[in-house]
This record gives sequence, structure tokens and C-alpha cells, in this order.
Amino acid sequence: MKAKRHVILLVSILPWLACVNESRPDEQAGQHPSLIITKTEAREIRKSLGKYPLLDQSVDGLKATVEAALASLIEVPPPGEAGGYEHERHKQNYREMRDAGLLYQITGDERYAGFVRDMLMRYAEMYPTLGPHPRAHNQRPGKLFHQMLNETVWLANTSIAYDCIYEWLSPEDREHLEANIFRQIVEWFTETNVHEFDRIHNHGMWSTASVGMIGYVTGNQDWVDMALYGSERDGSGGFLKQVELLFSPDGYYMEGPYYVRYAMRPLFKFAEAIERNQPELEIYGFKDGLLKKALYSAANLAFPNGVFAPINDASKTMDIRAPGVVLGTNAIIHREGADDNLLALCAIQGRVFLNGAGLATARAYSRLKAPPKIRWGSIEYTDGNDGTQGGVGVLRHGEGADQTMVLMKYGVHGLGHGHFDKLHFILFDQGREVIPDYGFCRWINIEPKFGGRYLPENDSYAKQTITHNTVVVDGISQNRGDRQAADRVHGERHFFDATRPDVQVMSARANQHYDGVDMQRTLFLIANDQTEFPVLIDIYRLKSQNRHQYDYPIHYNGQLINFGSSYEAFQENWQPLGPEHGYQHIWKTAEGSEVTNSPVRLTWVDGHRYYTLITTGTAGGQGILGRTGANDPDYNLRSEPLAIVRANGSEVVFCSAIEPHGYFNEATESSRAARGIIQAVRILGHTDEGTVVNVTGKNGLDWTLSVTNQEASATRGHSVLVNGQPYEWSGNFSARLEGNNSQTQP
Amino acid sequence: MKAKRHVILLVSILPWLACVNESRPDEQAGQHPSLIITKTEAREIRKSLGKYPLLDQSVDGLKATVEAALASLIEVPPPGEAGGYEHERHKQNYREMRDAGLLYQITGDERYAGFVRDMLMRYAEMYPTLGPHPRAHNQRPGKLFHQMLNETVWLANTSIAYDCIYEWLSPEDREHLEANIFRQIVEWFTETNVHEFDRIHNHGMWSTASVGMIGYVTGNQDWVDMALYGSERDGSGGFLKQVELLFSPDGYYMEGPYYVRYAMRPLFKFAEAIERNQPELEIYGFKDGLLKKALYSAANLAFPNGVFAPINDASKTMDIRAPGVVLGTNAIIHREGADDNLLALCAIQGRVFLNGAGLATARAYSRLKAPPKIRWGSIEYTDGNDGTQGGVGVLRHGEGADQTMVLMKYGVHGLGHGHFDKLHFILFDQGREVIPDYGFCRWINIEPKFGGRYLPENDSYAKQTITHNTVVVDGISQNRGDRQAADRVHGERHFFDATRPDVQVMSARANQHYDGVDMQRTLFLIANDQTEFPVLIDIYRLKSQNRHQYDYPIHYNGQLINFGSSYEAFQENWQPLGPEHGYQHIWKTAEGSEVTNSPVRLTWVDGHRYYTLITTGTAGGQGILGRTGANDPDYNLRSEPLAIVRANGSEVVFCSAIEPHGYFNEATESSRAARGIIQAVRILGHTDEGTVVNVTGKNGLDWTLSVTNQEASATRGHSVLVNGQPYEWSGNFSARLEGNNSQTQP
Repeated sequence: MKAKRHVILLVSILPWLACVNESRPDEQAGQHPSLIITKTEAREIRKSLGKYPLLDQSVDGLKATVEAALASLIEVPPPGEAGGYEHERHKQNYREMRDAGLLYQITGDERYAGFVRDMLMRYAEMYPTLGPHPRAHNQRPGKLFHQMLNETVWLANTSIAYDCIYEWLSPEDREHLEANIFRQIVEWFTETNVHEFDRIHNHGMWSTASVGMIGYVTGNQDWVDMALYGSERDGSGGFLKQVELLFSPDGYYMEGPYYVRYAMRPLFKFAEAIERNQPELEIYGFKDGLLKKALYSAANLAFPNGVFAPINDASKTMDIRAPGVVLGTNAIIHREGADDNLLALCAIQGRVFLNGAGLATARAYSRLKAPPKIRWGSIEYTDGNDGTQGGVGVLRHGEGADQTMVLMKYGVHGLGHGHFDKLHFILFDQGREVIPDYGFCRWINIEPKFGGRYLPENDSYAKQTITHNTVVVDGISQNRGDRQAADRVHGERHFFDATRPDVQVMSARANQHYDGVDMQRTLFLIANDQTEFPVLIDIYRLKSQNRHQYDYPIHYNGQLINFGSSYEAFQENWQPLGPEHGYQHIWKTAEGSEVTNSPVRLTWVDGHRYYTLITTGTAGGQGILGRTGANDPDYNLRSEPLAIVRANGSEVVFCSAIEPHGYFNEATESSRAARGIIQAVRILGHTDEGTVVNVTGKNGLDWTLSVTNQEASATRGHSVLVNGQPYEWSGNFSARLEGNNSQTQP
Repeated sequence: MKAKRHVILLVSILPWLACVNESRPDEQAGQHPSLIITKTEAREIRKSLGKYPLLDQSVDGLKATVEAALASLIEVPPPGEAGGYEHERHKQNYREMRDAGLLYQITGDERYAGFVRDMLMRYAEMYPTLGPHPRAHNQRPGKLFHQMLNETVWLANTSIAYDCIYEWLSPEDREHLEANIFRQIVEWFTETNVHEFDRIHNHGMWSTASVGMIGYVTGNQDWVDMALYGSERDGSGGFLKQVELLFSPDGYYMEGPYYVRYAMRPLFKFAEAIERNQPELEIYGFKDGLLKKALYSAANLAFPNGVFAPINDASKTMDIRAPGVVLGTNAIIHREGADDNLLALCAIQGRVFLNGAGLATARAYSRLKAPPKIRWGSIEYTDGNDGTQGGVGVLRHGEGADQTMVLMKYGVHGLGHGHFDKLHFILFDQGREVIPDYGFCRWINIEPKFGGRYLPENDSYAKQTITHNTVVVDGISQNRGDRQAADRVHGERHFFDATRPDVQVMSARANQHYDGVDMQRTLFLIANDQTEFPVLIDIYRLKSQNRHQYDYPIHYNGQLINFGSSYEAFQENWQPLGPEHGYQHIWKTAEGSEVTNSPVRLTWVDGHRYYTLITTGTAGGQGILGRTGANDPDYNLRSEPLAIVRANGSEVVFCSAIEPHGYFNEATESSRAARGIIQAVRILGHTDEGTVVNVTGKNGLDWTLSVTNQEASATRGHSVLVNGQPYEWSGNFSARLEGNNSQTQP
């Protein structure tokens, strides 16, 4: 595997390596600014003021914050605690310097330039006196910040500020700043912490991008070359290799969308700098247009409200308004042209980056009659730098804010921020995560919560398998919760078929995550007029030689309406569900009286809609209810409910119908259809050939669905015995939807 | 007390009784419609279409729903389960008939009239065949509905519909409908269920109003007289007596705002009918303009977002857009004139009732340049029909959506929907209940949740004292949770002073709620520039001859950031906090290691703001954390956290500072000031004369606050020993606010 990667790397980087020794073809060679904005772009923006609302809003927004900064005393405090006042002050400082620099270029107002110089001088005074920050914990320390990551962000932003006032400064001032800040910080990054610089990780991208950017500003092409090609300057490390290995060929970022929006900052900042300084590198063409694909991939993995699906370590609220996504959207519109979906992102973003890309975006946006709706359709992304390591599938139905979206995850583990969650799915409906991902366990930037760092419960709960909506075998997480083991394997694509509007299907496998247990999950999103909203049908098949305990968990939100018919709620005593692998953090709150062949049923209300889950299993099942919060002495977890269906067996199929239905509005005291249409789910047959299930409900609803358990093939015929009769279909799946108002199979 | 009530009643009702035998002075006597809209009003509305946006929106809204109804089959199903399909269908039917009737008058389109007739004919067919509904549980049954209440609402709305098409119907049709529906239903209400008709309760108001309304339409003045003066027609019962006894002289409704918005529907519907048919009764002048006061009182007890403070049995989301409040707002604007606060309500309501009152409102609203902000200030309401039974106080600071509001409850129990919650307070800040009231325990209109009725946990949890933010003595609710005992007593006003903008204070007592324990709570809302947001200081004094356990609870929402310094979190086992009085529903989740004289500290984040509670007690205290959900087999409770400070003693003072501070935004990953300004709270002295406390914090913040424990007097001098020195002030309280940026006492 390593060898193969290496070959691809050399082939794809060679054309770029060839340019290393050429001189810069930039007409304005040596002119400043040239990093992310040029004199020409600044002049164009100035001339465009008052014409394009998005541009004006963005300039006004920047002015408001920078003027407030100018009216305050400059503070460059000694380094402090993560998330603490000093930490936040240094972050605010680089943002203010960057914005003041841009405003100086756009307005010509020298107060802005003076502000940047004065602050830089304060840093030049302090920086040489600093040693490594004492509170790095298990990360590389910066000097201003507890972790080097923040320092690279500081440098990337400060480079923009320095570039903007470069010509305004005296040569003596420049020499002073470069000697006391920039040469020292580059040495810190590229020598003392060279491992971090060459690391294939978003931290590495920040490190290389920041060094490359200050390299361009200071005319130090050697720094730029190190940034592009690694500390060895041979393409074995550096920005291009990082981009090469961290993204799949169709632009999916292995850490998931929360981290890609962060990686997009150095990605697009440095790309814009490269394009202005070494256009011959054709960075926007790199890896077959990867930057554009990366932006589209991130946007496609956002919910209809613009919030990123919180897979892997992720906040529940990060969205496409994040600065890297704004810059990326502007850059792609500028370099590759606008389309309706990109302009729909702009409508949510409400601002542009203040350079030529932002100007082009504001101009394109101003030509629209009305803000377009986002119309991303269903899509599958491959994972792994060569696209062969599983993927992520997204099924969508409807459009605009009330779109239904189902995401399934079956790619790589994704390094240190990965979760043990293969075949996990999220259901987004009615503008919210109805079957959610917990996200990370971290109260980001809240200083009293361990400096806003990742909390111990991120490892012990957020990453574990039971925390996700995927089966746990024997109460143990996938790959026993061992990251190294998990990074060596990946999920597998089976098939993805979104061609039929009423029945969209995705199916995937994870056979390397539990010793001797093969798992296949198939999700059908069925949208015909027999039910009010699209219904999700889940067929989860596990196969082993040995007998295991299989826990099928569904996390939900809102208020439970009813749970099956016969269970014991633990009224006087709650105890943890298990000893480890996340189970220790879940209170067991109720339990079905016995293993039963009747389906487990759960109805809850969330927002204005009801949801009913009906789950049946070939080995019967016992319903369990839980709530997070056990073994949480520092109250780091959110208190959230889940349901589990537990079965014991070797070969087991779970089949669920998840039906949104009705309407509830407490304020108007309206309730409608608190009981769903679907009444029963049965597994009719299952063999290595395929699985056949049947879903029935009111008004004669009668759906028979089947899926192949063999290699995917659009044409192969299948036959599974159902009640002694062969049930036959050809292709990867079949769906017969009968009943009133039914649509028949095409 | 009873005698006194009777005297007031006779005096105030006499002028109305005098009118009983006069003939109707209405110029258009006998003309229809005349109940809630007249021909003239309908014509004016028709002429005004296209002129006033609020009017147009309202007409369009009505047309949309009525046209949908016209396009569907009429359904008049046999009676069904509470909250079930048939129940909801009958509710929808009366709304559709009422709206179709109004639209017929406004547009003259006979399709609307035909719709009402056809539906009424269906009811005329079924109604005579019905007996009492079999599923009333502990309420009076209706025939169409499980409870009579719904049937009275049906009649009130259907009366409007019938009035609107009265002249369009043939005399034979009218006789058929009156014989088969209206005479039978009036007999059901005024004879079979006469107790409910005369009852001093919102159910009684619905019953009398509905009978009075159909009386006006059918020209049956005897029904009207019964409605106005009770079944005995002598003023001992009926609508006027209900209004007389249910509202305090300044308009506060004893059941609280959730039920007043419901009571406002019969109140204003019938009032409008009276005004059109017996204007000589001057109903809008009744009890010194009580209708206007009732509307203002309800609006004043809404949070800045328009949602009613959920005191007593109440939904958490009912707001001023409720239909009774819309009609009431329109009627008062029409009869008494508009003001900015009423027009601000209209901005939130977004629609008007379609009669002359709504037209007047839409016209007044259209003259505004911009929608006004609600600017209710601080206000105190008295409780009890004579205004001597305690009250409700509201302190407000700021304006618009981010207004801070503190509400304290110290009036009567409030009948069957009352809670055992005297001296309870709610803190509303940042657009949300930060220190909330739980509201009722009911999933209203959700049929699988016991037909949407009140749930057993409403009695066992929602009404109990521990469920509120007020002290529980010996683990037992006020008045031992006995409603009859609670209805016999009430809280007492002490003083209310909102004259000083930086220090607003309200103080009240509850001395009849625990045998031998006197309680006084004083809330200071302090808004000066030493803290970022207004700070709440709470001085709660308990005095008894005997030793008791005092539990001081604070309910909160959001995520706990930290809790004191030394506590045991129960990690492996949760058990209920106690055996009864609501304690059985609270899991004890953590406990301070010991009773300590150090204050109990709790910081949490809710929305975009941090909150820190620092509580100290003269007898020390032990911090306890809890979460609702124990002994809740049907999952009827919401899972919510609370903190308790427990102290043992006879005479005990608790003093708390509750400080909102800083900013948190997960999506932008910003956090500021996660630690507050206030650092310590001390009780300097407390005697029967007064209590003196001291609050200190960063930047030299040093506040000394005192309150009188004697009878209120604006001038009396007080002296309490503090460290052996007399601390002196005059009046009910003093506040010395020192420190940087401090404002000194005036």
C-alpha cells in the first residue's frame, strides 16, 4: 500500500517539481501585496463599493470590527492558558491585523497600516523572549499559544497583514520584524518542529501554508519550496503531498467535514497565494481540480441548513459560514465560475472575503433575482487518497430547508479524530438531526472546561461504537477501539443507486471491524405518496461462525411518546449499561421484559413531527432504553436518550422502518397523526444470496424490498426462498410498493 | 371574607341587573349578524381590502383554510377519544364553520354559507342521537367531546357561524337546527350541567358565554340573562360574577396567563356580542374597565418574545398569538384606542380578527412607520378578586428581545390549576427562560399520551414545591400539597420598588404555607456598568421556632460548566432524591462532600451566555445536583437539571447572586468571559429588623444591600449590627454599589 501511494505521489507532483527552479513569471514580481490580494484587486473593490450588497456588507462588517480595535489599546499579553483571556487576545490580534491590512489596501487609510505596524512591533519585542509554551499537554507547543497549531494560524493571518503594509513600512522596520518574528517562527516550525511540518494532517497543512505565505511576502523562495515540497524539498512532504494524501480523488477529506472546513483555510489561503505568485503551478488544476472538488464535497456533506454533518470529532453547529468555506466558495466562483448551488451557499454565508475572488462572487450574486435554494442531490463519495477505501453516501429527498437527508459512513477511520463508527448513519429531517451523531465531546474554547480542549469523554464516549447508530458486537467497539488497528482497515462500498426517485438505496459493508463478523447495511429512502414523509428502511445483516451479542442502537432527540408494550422502566435506580467501550457512560433506563419476536416499537416527538421506529430481528430482540450521563464526574456529556435492540446469534438480520409522521405544535396546541402509517416489519428470507423484507401498514401499504448480499451487479439475477417459494429479482435490489396510492415498480 | 365578596358583587352588578328587562336599544334589532360582526362592519372590511396589510393577510389566511375545507368532504364523525381523530375533526369543524360564516359576510359568496348550512345539518342529524360521552374521566362529559368544555367552545364558535348565515337560511332550516342542536345543547349546559354553568372558573365562562351567544342569535333573551346573571338570573352566578371573582381589580387572572389567554376567548367573544346587542350594559366599563386591564395584565406577564410566563399549569410555548389575545387586542384597540405596546403585540400576532375591531386594528397598525418594540416596564399586580391576596411582581431591564425579566409569584393558589409555588421566581434573559418554570406535565392533544390530558406527573411533580425555584421545608410541599388548604391562604406583598433604574427590588412573604415557618424573599435586579448584564441578588429569609431542613432549589437549562470545588458525582448509581412531594421524580446526581460555610458555586452555559450562581447561607449549606426523570415509567417528564442548596436550622437566610456573563458561540468557536465578575456573597447581618448582605467581585466590585424585615415603609429608619457596628438605612432597602465604574446611591 505504501509503495503504491508513493508512485501516485511522484507522478502527480512531478510537473510541479519541475517548476521549482524557474523564476516567478508574475508581471509585478516583487510588488506587494501579492499574497491574497493585489493592488489591482484592491482598486477594483474600491471602485465597486455601493454596487454589490454582499461586498458592501462585508466591507462594513470588517470596518466595524477594525474601527473598534483602533479605538482600543493594543494588547500583546504574555502567553496564557488555552481558551483563556491571553489566548483569545492573540487570536483576536491576528484577525484584527489581517482585516486592518486588507482595509488599508482597499481604502488607503493609513490608520489601518499604522495599527498593523504598531501591533507587529509589540510582537517583535516579545517573541524573541519566549520559549516553548509550558502547557502543551500532548501536543507540540507554540510560543504564543499552548499548541503550535494556533501559532501557524497566527502566522498565516499575520502574513496577509504584513503583505498588505509591506510597501508602507520602512526597510528598517521590515528587517526588524523579519529578524525578530518571522525568521524565528519559521525556524520554530521548519526545524524544531519539522515533524509537524511534514505531517500528513490538517496541522501540517497549516504549518506548510503559513511558511509558504511568509516566504512569498519576504521573497524567500526557499521557504516557499519547503512549504510546497516538504522540508527535504523533494516532494516527500509539504503542502502538495498533504493535499495529495488527505483528500480522495473526488474531494472527500478523510477527517470529515468539520475538519475540512478548518483545512480549507490553509488550503485556499495558500492556493490563492500560489496562484498570484507561481501561476505556472496551476494549483487549481492540481490533482484533476481537487480544490474545486474539496469545496463541493464539503458543501455536499452539509445538512440543508448549512450545518456540517458532525461525523468524527466535530462540533454540532459548525457550518458553511466558516471562514475557510467562505474563502473557498469565493475562490472557486472566481477561478471556475459560479453555479446555483455555490451562489446558494453565498446566500447563507452573507459575506465574501475581501479580495478579487470575493469581488467576483459579490458581482455574480448581485445578478440573481432571488437567492437560489440549495439543490444538492444524492451523492456518494469515495474515501482514501486513491478512492478505494470505502466512502460516504448521502441520500436526499425534497429541497430547501425541509429536505430529508440520510448519510452513511463507510470509509477510512480518519486518523486521530476518527470514530469507530463504520456503517453509522444520520437522519436529518425537518431542519434537524432526528437520528443524530453525538459529535465530539469538547466545549470548544470554554476555558474552565479543560481550556476548551478535547475532554477525556471524547475518547471514552464520543468515539465509541455504541455512541453511533451502528451495531456493536459483544459490547466492544469496532477494532476494539484501537486507532492504529482501525486506521489499517476501512469500510467497503457495495452499491449506491439514486436513479429511481421513489426508492433510493445505498448499501455498504464493514468486514474488517470485528474479528470473524461480516456486516452489511442497506438503507432505502422511500418517498411515494403512501406516507406523508419519506420513510427510511434499514436492513442490517451480520454474519459470523460464532454466537455474539449484537446491539443495534438508535439515538434520538425529543420526547418519548411510547415504547413497545411490555417493558420495565427503572424507576428507583439507574445503573450503567456496561463497563466499557462507551457503555459505562449510558444509564440503562428501561428494558423489555424479555427477548421477543415482536418488533420493538418506539415513537417520539421532536420539533413539530412524530417519528416511529419499528425494528425486528431474525433472532428476536430485547428493547433497551438508555440515557447518557453515567460516569461523568465533570458533567462533560450532554444528557441524551437512545434505544437499543439487543439480539444474540451468529447470523442475524435487523430490519427497521423509521417513519416521520403527523404534526405537533405545542404553542397552537395542534396534534395530528401521532400514530404512523407503518404497522409491521418482517424479514421474509435471508441467505448469502440476498435478504427479503416486508413492510405493511394502513391503507393496504405493502412493501416488499430485497437486496443482494453478493457482489454488486446491476444485472445479476437473485432468488431467495420465502415461505418455500423462490422470491426473484435481478440487480442489486428490488422494491415492490403496493397499497393505495402506490407507485409500482418501473 | 365571604361576606365582603358578596357585598362587592352586589354593588358592582346592580347597574347591570337593572337593565335586564329593558328592550334592546340596537337600531338594527333582530338583524343578523349582530354577534361579533354586523353587516356594516362586513361592508367596511370589504371596502378596505387591499389597503391594510394586516387585514389582507388575515383575510387571505382565512380564505386559504376555508377553501381547503370546501374542497374536502364534510365529515361529522361519531364522538371519539380525547385528542384522537374524531375529537380533532369536531374542533376543526367549528373553526371552519366560524371562518366560513365570517367570509360569507365579508365576500357575499354563498358557497361559504352553503358550507356552514350543510355541516350544521349533519350535526342536527347526529346530535339528538348522542348521550353523554363515555370517556370523561373526572370531568363533566360533553356529547360530541369527552369533556363538556370542548362542547361549550364548539357552541360559542358555531353561534358565530350560525349568526353569519342566519338570514340566508330558510325559517324551516332555522327551526330544524334550533330544535335539533341549539335547544338541546343549551339544556345540556344550563340544566343537566348547571353546576358547571355557574362555576367560578374558565370552564364556567365558556359555558355562560356560549349560551349567551346562541341566546342573542336566536333572540332568546332568557338564555342571555342566564348567561349574564347565572342560572338563578339573580347575579349569584353567570358570566359577570365569573369575571368579577376570577380577576383582581387590576386585571390579574387568578389562574395565571396560560389560562387567561384561554378565558379571554369567551371573555371577549361574549363582550363583543354584549356590546353589539346590549350596549347599555357598557361591558367594557365593567368593574372599572376590567377587560382592558385583563388584556394588559396578560401581555405584561408575557416574556419579551411574546410567550406567556408558564406559571401554574401552563404550556411552555403558549404566546400572545393565541386567538383570544388577538381578539382581545383588537377589541381593546377598537374600543379604547391603540398604544405602542398594543401595536407591538399586533406585530407579533401578524393577524387580526375579521370584524370591526380587527379592521380598526389593521388601520391603526398601517399608520406606523416601523413595528414598535414592546416596552412593558416593571410592574406589580395584586391578586384576589379584591386585590388583597398577594400578587405577582415583574422586574424588567432593557427592551426588545434581549430584555431581562424577573417574575416572582406571591398571590393565591389559583384553584385546580394552581401550583404550590409561593415566592417562586423565573429569570428570563437572552430570549429564553434561564431559571425556568417547569410548566405543566401534559403533552397537549397528543392522543397516545393519555389523550393529551393532564398526566399523573402533573400532580406528583409539576405542581410540587421542589419543582419551582422556592424553598422547600422538610422535603414537603407548601400546604402539604393540599389544594383546599392552599386555596384558603395566599402570599403577601411586602414592597415593590422600580423607581431607581440601577436597582429594582421586589419583596414578598409567604407565612401561611408552612406551619410555624415565616418566609420572605427579596429580589434585587441590579443593572449598572460594573457587570455586563443585569445581576439578580436574592435574599431568602426563613424563620421558625423549630429546626427544619431548608432546600433552596434553582432549576436551570444548558450545560454545566463547573460546580463548586468538592463534591461527589454519583457515577455508577442514581437514586431518587426523596420519597414524595416531587422529590421521587428527581435523580440525585451529585452532592457536596459536606455542609460548608463556603458558598455553593455553579456555572452553566445556556445559548450564547454563561450564568454563575453563588449561594451562601447563614447555616452553611450543602450543594446537591439533580435531574428529573426518576419514577417516570411512562416517560412523561422532560429530563432537566437543577441545583439545590440544603441547610438545617430554624432561622436561616440564603443569599444568592445570579450573574449572566460573557459569550459563547459554538458555531464560530468563540468564547469570552466564561468566569464571572462576582466572586463572593456574604450575609453581614440579619435580625427581625432587616438583613444586610455584601457582594464582591473583580475590579473592586463591592455592593452592600439591605432589606427591611419589618412592615414596609418608605421612610422608617433601620439599624442592623454588622461586625459589632450598626449598619443604618431608611426605607425598605438600601443599595451601596461601589467599585470601578460604580454608580453611587442617589
